[in-house]
Amino acid sequence: MFNEDYLRYKELVDSHLLGFLPEIDQQSETLYEAMKYSLSSGGKRLRPVLLLAANDFCGGDINTALPYAIAVEYIHTYSLIHDDLPCMDDDDMRRGKPANHKVFGEDMAVLAGDGLLSAAFEIMLRDMLLYFDAPDKLKRKVRAANEIAKGAGCRGMVAGQVADIESQGRQCAKEYLEYIHLNKTAALIVSSLKAGAYLGGGTKEKLDALTSYGEVIGLGFQIADDLLDVYGDAETMGKNTGKDYARSKCTFPGIFGVEAAEQRLEDLTVKAVEIMEPFQEEGEFFTQIATQLSKRDK
Amino acid sequence: MFNEDYLRYKELVDSHLLGFLPEIDQQSETLYEAMKYSLSSGGKRLRPVLLLAANDFCGGDINTALPYAIAVEYIHTYSLIHDDLPCMDDDDMRRGKPANHKVFGEDMAVLAGDGLLSAAFEIMLRDMLLYFDAPDKLKRKVRAANEIAKGAGCRGMVAGQVADIESQGRQCAKEYLEYIHLNKTAALIVSSLKAGAYLGGGTKEKLDALTSYGEVIGLGFQIADDLLDVYGDAETMGKNTGKDYARSKCTFPGIFGVEAAEQRLEDLTVKAVEIMEPFQEEGEFFTQIATQLSKRDK
Repeated sequence: MFNEDYLRYKELVDSHLLGFLPEIDQQSETLYEAMKYSLSSGGKRLRPVLLLAANDFCGGDINTALPYAIAVEYIHTYSLIHDDLPCMDDDDMRRGKPANHKVFGEDMAVLAGDGLLSAAFEIMLRDMLLYFDAPDKLKRKVRAANEIAKGAGCRGMVAGQVADIESQGRQCAKEYLEYIHLNKTAALIVSSLKAGAYLGGGTKEKLDALTSYGEVIGLGFQIADDLLDVYGDAETMGKNTGKDYARSKCTFPGIFGVEAAEQRLEDLTVKAVEIMEPFQEEGEFFTQIATQLSKRDK
Repeated sequence: MFNEDYLRYKELVDSHLLGFLPEIDQQSETLYEAMKYSLSSGGKRLRPVLLLAANDFCGGDINTALPYAIAVEYIHTYSLIHDDLPCMDDDDMRRGKPANHKVFGEDMAVLAGDGLLSAAFEIMLRDMLLYFDAPDKLKRKVRAANEIAKGAGCRGMVAGQVADIESQGRQCAKEYLEYIHLNKTAALIVSSLKAGAYLGGGTKEKLDALTSYGEVIGLGFQIADDLLDVYGDAETMGKNTGKDYARSKCTFPGIFGVEAAEQRLEDLTVKAVEIMEPFQEEGEFFTQIATQLSKRDK
């Protein structure tokens, strides 16, 4: 679905994803298997790809940024495992395979999520230890990790997940809907882009552009996802569809209808392209991602 | 139960615990309440106290270490919330109050735990941003946070929790039992002590002593806890007792009997005191904690 650059970044992430797992004891094999299972079950790796692309865009070295890209994907993966739990969204399928808790049990799924979230920070902090003789790089890394922590946490993704759950079955205002999307989905996307910008040592202009761009495509990404939930079929999605709708969750198509949602997605795409326009060819990777948004499959 | 120094450290932790919660939006009030609920429900604050004491012992400034002490208590608190979940230990009571999931629901309890774990790293990383002009202090902080991440994660506490769950109803060897305790309980205690030593800029001698000391009291702490589960009453414990025994979990008294467990606890106390002996009065705080171990209440 994406271009060569995308695939190159994705390939790098895919090939290093498991290698960054902390070495764990034989006694924890089940934990290891459970974490590995969800890390290996595919996905577009959008967040780490964006981090690596932002780092490139700002002139950074790709290998220096890699641990942070991996960390972001660990965080995204943990969030999917916990979201799928019976007490949360209660989804049996994820990316075309049984959800983590269906394979390893609920207890192990909770712990695999906890393990991945912890591992994400372990990876970043361990990496920082290697840069004690390069203070400027060390600072960039601290900034990047701080940004990722914010996006993942209770002012970001976790807050969005709470709002999403609380919206179920409720009449929900447009502002609340935007709050959910900005946090549940956009926050970690924005953090990935900002982290990449920090790692690459980008200018304020680039950092600001990537931040706005991230918010816009984050919202678009969620609307596209909700649209697929309405008209997608289970095969394309790799998970059961129509569930959010059935649960009367607070979604854009749910409130405004499919047509309005498609129009909003279109508008967001245009806006994202506009934000990156000043950078001309340099920003092309990001405009391409934005234009692909409305055509995406899961 | 502990001395004046202990209470001074504990007081400092208690009075700053909520103040370190990231400011979150009104829309996330339930999340905030759920996190606050478990942070405020008492507890001895052993881990942050040990961190602060280790930092003092190594000559550090207490205010510089505080965010890391708070972070460790956030991590401990998240682990209790997740441990109590129906799919895990299924405990309705914690510290004399209904468990988090009994008050806020299972979904919110999962998210409150996720939020606290993320917040712990957010607190440490935000603190690092303040030390960009003091590279030596920044490095100490990175080392401390790295240590805490390791102790909390899938090579530490999470691994221990997995082993603990897997031990249920199984015949379990002494080595496996020790593996559970070393990870489930001792790991975060050791990390707290090591983090304090790093923050305080301690010598290798002090760091090594605190590490060994932490392993020993960590094991002791768990045996004392398991003993209370056997003969404690629910009122003293603030939670239901006899449950681990009923579930035939892998515990020291469960395998070797109560008397052997008491003897082992005694031996560990002696060992902990021996480890700190070379430091004479300087190490008194730690020897006192060790001798209190066998007399502890929850």
